[in-house]
Amino acid sequence: MCHTIPVTDTRDHTGEHLDHLVRRSWTPAGGQDAILPPHATRWLASRTGLTEQSTPAAPDSALVVGESALSDVAGKALESVVGAGNVLRGRDDRLGRTGGLSYLDLLRHRGTGELAVPDAVVVPADPEQVQRVVEVCAEHGVGLVPFGGGTSVVGGVQALRGSKESVVMLDLCRLDRLVSVDPVSRLAVLQAGVVAPEAERLLSAHGLTLGHVPQSFERATIGGFAATRSSGQASAGYGRFEDMVEGVRMATPRGEWRLGVSPASAAGPDLRQLVVGSEGVFGVITEVTVRVRPLPKARRYEGFVFDGWSRGAQVVRALAQRRVLADVTRLSDPHETEMAFALSGGWKTTLVRRYLRLRGMGDPCLLVLGWEGESEAEVVSRRKATLRVLRGRKPVTLGRPVGEKWRHGRFAGPRQRDALLDMGVCVETLETATYWSNVDTLRSAVRAALQDALARPGVTPIVACHISHAYETGGSLYFTTIVPRDPDDPIGQWEHAKAAACAAISSNGPLGTITHHHAVGVDHAPYLPAEIGRLGVDVLAAVKRELDPEGVLNPGKLLGEPR
Amino acid sequence: MCHTIPVTDTRDHTGEHLDHLVRRSWTPAGGQDAILPPHATRWLASRTGLTEQSTPAAPDSALVVGESALSDVAGKALESVVGAGNVLRGRDDRLGRTGGLSYLDLLRHRGTGELAVPDAVVVPADPEQVQRVVEVCAEHGVGLVPFGGGTSVVGGVQALRGSKESVVMLDLCRLDRLVSVDPVSRLAVLQAGVVAPEAERLLSAHGLTLGHVPQSFERATIGGFAATRSSGQASAGYGRFEDMVEGVRMATPRGEWRLGVSPASAAGPDLRQLVVGSEGVFGVITEVTVRVRPLPKARRYEGFVFDGWSRGAQVVRALAQRRVLADVTRLSDPHETEMAFALSGGWKTTLVRRYLRLRGMGDPCLLVLGWEGESEAEVVSRRKATLRVLRGRKPVTLGRPVGEKWRHGRFAGPRQRDALLDMGVCVETLETATYWSNVDTLRSAVRAALQDALARPGVTPIVACHISHAYETGGSLYFTTIVPRDPDDPIGQWEHAKAAACAAISSNGPLGTITHHHAVGVDHAPYLPAEIGRLGVDVLAAVKRELDPEGVLNPGKLLGEPR
Repeated sequence: MCHTIPVTDTRDHTGEHLDHLVRRSWTPAGGQDAILPPHATRWLASRTGLTEQSTPAAPDSALVVGESALSDVAGKALESVVGAGNVLRGRDDRLGRTGGLSYLDLLRHRGTGELAVPDAVVVPADPEQVQRVVEVCAEHGVGLVPFGGGTSVVGGVQALRGSKESVVMLDLCRLDRLVSVDPVSRLAVLQAGVVAPEAERLLSAHGLTLGHVPQSFERATIGGFAATRSSGQASAGYGRFEDMVEGVRMATPRGEWRLGVSPASAAGPDLRQLVVGSEGVFGVITEVTVRVRPLPKARRYEGFVFDGWSRGAQVVRALAQRRVLADVTRLSDPHETEMAFALSGGWKTTLVRRYLRLRGMGDPCLLVLGWEGESEAEVVSRRKATLRVLRGRKPVTLGRPVGEKWRHGRFAGPRQRDALLDMGVCVETLETATYWSNVDTLRSAVRAALQDALARPGVTPIVACHISHAYETGGSLYFTTIVPRDPDDPIGQWEHAKAAACAAISSNGPLGTITHHHAVGVDHAPYLPAEIGRLGVDVLAAVKRELDPEGVLNPGKLLGEPR
Repeated sequence: MCHTIPVTDTRDHTGEHLDHLVRRSWTPAGGQDAILPPHATRWLASRTGLTEQSTPAAPDSALVVGESALSDVAGKALESVVGAGNVLRGRDDRLGRTGGLSYLDLLRHRGTGELAVPDAVVVPADPEQVQRVVEVCAEHGVGLVPFGGGTSVVGGVQALRGSKESVVMLDLCRLDRLVSVDPVSRLAVLQAGVVAPEAERLLSAHGLTLGHVPQSFERATIGGFAATRSSGQASAGYGRFEDMVEGVRMATPRGEWRLGVSPASAAGPDLRQLVVGSEGVFGVITEVTVRVRPLPKARRYEGFVFDGWSRGAQVVRALAQRRVLADVTRLSDPHETEMAFALSGGWKTTLVRRYLRLRGMGDPCLLVLGWEGESEAEVVSRRKATLRVLRGRKPVTLGRPVGEKWRHGRFAGPRQRDALLDMGVCVETLETATYWSNVDTLRSAVRAALQDALARPGVTPIVACHISHAYETGGSLYFTTIVPRDPDDPIGQWEHAKAAACAAISSNGPLGTITHHHAVGVDHAPYLPAEIGRLGVDVLAAVKRELDPEGVLNPGKLLGEPR
């Protein structure tokens, strides 16, 4: 890149990064009441059968952490690469990088079930150190799990040992630099450990944005987005993360691998798309070259309501197929619409619900649309094109307050979940995607599977669903499940439900993908052969053997058991 | 797909398909004069130093074709799958599937250089027969080259034997069915051998279009598009072919492999993108599920001229980055603009040139823009958004006649090339792509390499260039070279020039991709490591070993020598 501007590193790495992930819950900004107001709790009790029950987070001190199994010789070799102070064997350091943020991960951190604690945490300073750490691990047969924001909800950062005697977490938090920008080509090189808000802060100094805003935004990293094929809430406008990846730099036991010389190519298969989604089993992504855009100067978010899921889904399909999607396009089914109004704030919500009932909305489905652009005129013109399709399909317009309310609360989900966990609720999400002609069938199948699996006397599970990613040929389905926790078998309760949902998705074709943007990790590995075939799994295993012949990289993820 | 409509096969396969590819030249529609009028010939002579010289196509009978080396036992095994009448060993049948349509391929068919003639042509009826043919070839160690339209310009269908004693062409012409359509999801399943115009005819019966129009449109097939990551002239609107591929069915020696259950997924790497571009070395693509669109009901093509390459390229970049590209967006540099006007028809062209000179255009660069849409209103609105960016950048508007002239002549290139070959001209194209900040550097480097390599006393090569595929981060560069043939070493003349151009592209970074849409084949294989790294080539080889352990599939392509 001729016009590339290298960005000088002015940050001071003096250890303050080392404990930023030890806390497992998402700190509430304004106390728990702000997250779950009393009326929300009342609604939950009446809707699901939740009784008074309290299971707050256990103190970390109550958790059982075994001795580190990292051998002295491997430890010394790692210290020789990153320095003694960056190979952490302390209880809290290891516990802080134990597991991700799935419901079961959180339960385990509350003392239910067993934690897979790594033997040490290694904190390299730069891509060169990552490369050497990878080589040391291959040489000494030490399992290595790349750790970015630790936000995996599918077991992607579990400290599994596979066939190895020890496993270390490779915490990428010191790879936090914007390396260069090329404003002409609209490219930026970001190190893998840059957390999304920091990426936006660094890019905004150049008038640029990435525009990638998944719900994990506040914690997730650039490397994690690439490793898992992340998709943000504004994917309709900015694309999925894989659409933004123009180049990658990856540390593998066979050496460093760099890809990306042009926006498109016919020089064989697109190997960038083999690295994106590889979940750390082929190598550790250390840098990503991303396509960036100018910071939006105008934005407009609005709420609309349609009567009935099918009508709403047809509208989203029409917007996608006419290629006039808003940047954010998000349709909730009646259950999610009810839940959204019930869990969010107060009298205004009540007014909206009354208003909708007055307008004869039997099954109101909320559609949030958000446009962002380089000028007010662009937003106005794109909004006009979108609304032209809505016309004639009888939407009720709720206007900007509802749209803005959604935008401001867009990252609140994880915090709300912590509060629900405290109250004894089993709350988890799962997602899939399929072609349009299949969307209704798939939604019904997953709903039925979850409801059947979670029903028990006196308890009614809530299974809510939305489409938040729409394509010309299909859309995603994102399910949120809320049900009182089964005190006798809290882990089994969700495992059973998740297995039922995965079976529904993976059967008959399969009906859809086992994951639209949560990745495979440990949880979805058993369902991968149904989706990509036995040959597909064999191909991935062949690539892994080529790049990681010792099998040290992220054991047990993506491909399941070591092969 | 629930709403999938199976399409009944009503075609009669009685052998008429078997000779449709025996001719190597593209039949002129209205005689040679219509292709190269006298004023064009005069311009060529004055511009390049071309003298009177005539080298018409040699009669096929003059070409040397050796005996078939296919063993009786392998031949019998193949006949047992496809029937005796569909294993062709005749001279003309084999010659008709010898090589592709590069300049050197055409020269070889004119008696210059050596032809790599296959030992037989196998013509299976359906995907099941393809699967069994692949297995028979693996069992008997017979090389197998998938053959669609035979339009490769990079040696992708050369009948190389690799380490095998014989090689057969797998002619996919009988896999010519539209298998099903899903109008709700806008998907269609097409067999690999469907030729592009036939695909459009079959889809148009359902009111649908694929919209993929590369210059090879008249002959190229669906399977070939997928195997080579093809990109059509309307890629800005319809996407590259890999963007249209939702699913694939591939016959491999390890069994059949099917991919594609949803428009997007995070279930590991996107293996569809590993199959797309695999050039027949991993398996034979037998069916492709493609995204389709409604037939356009309105279209508008227009010509504009900008003064100077840089200004023109900046306009194209601005259109791409503001995401208001016309479906066809094609900018010619001053050399190609001059050539376009000189080679096309008569007095109107002269008038245009005079007009441009009057308007003070020192270095006129032609920009053709074409919009297609579901309604006149859509075209009007999208055109408005495009033209808003042109404003203030001083275009001269040539209006619809120039746009329509381009549209009608869009597939004429190959025919014009045949006529030029007859006249003793060395004419060939090559292409690359890079990021915007690098486009000018790359164009200059390739121009200089070609000019230096082709210059000789009394002769001035024409090196013309256009951008026809634009992305937010970069664009393609397509070069056309015209120079009087070197009578002493016609093959060496182009090999030398091509090597110089490839070296210019592959050096310093590399500067760009070795191929934006022509694929790797034999010709680009030496330059692949510079682009995807030694590890990238090792990964592809590992995948090949997994799927094709005997190494029978398309020997010598993509990866070069068998590995």
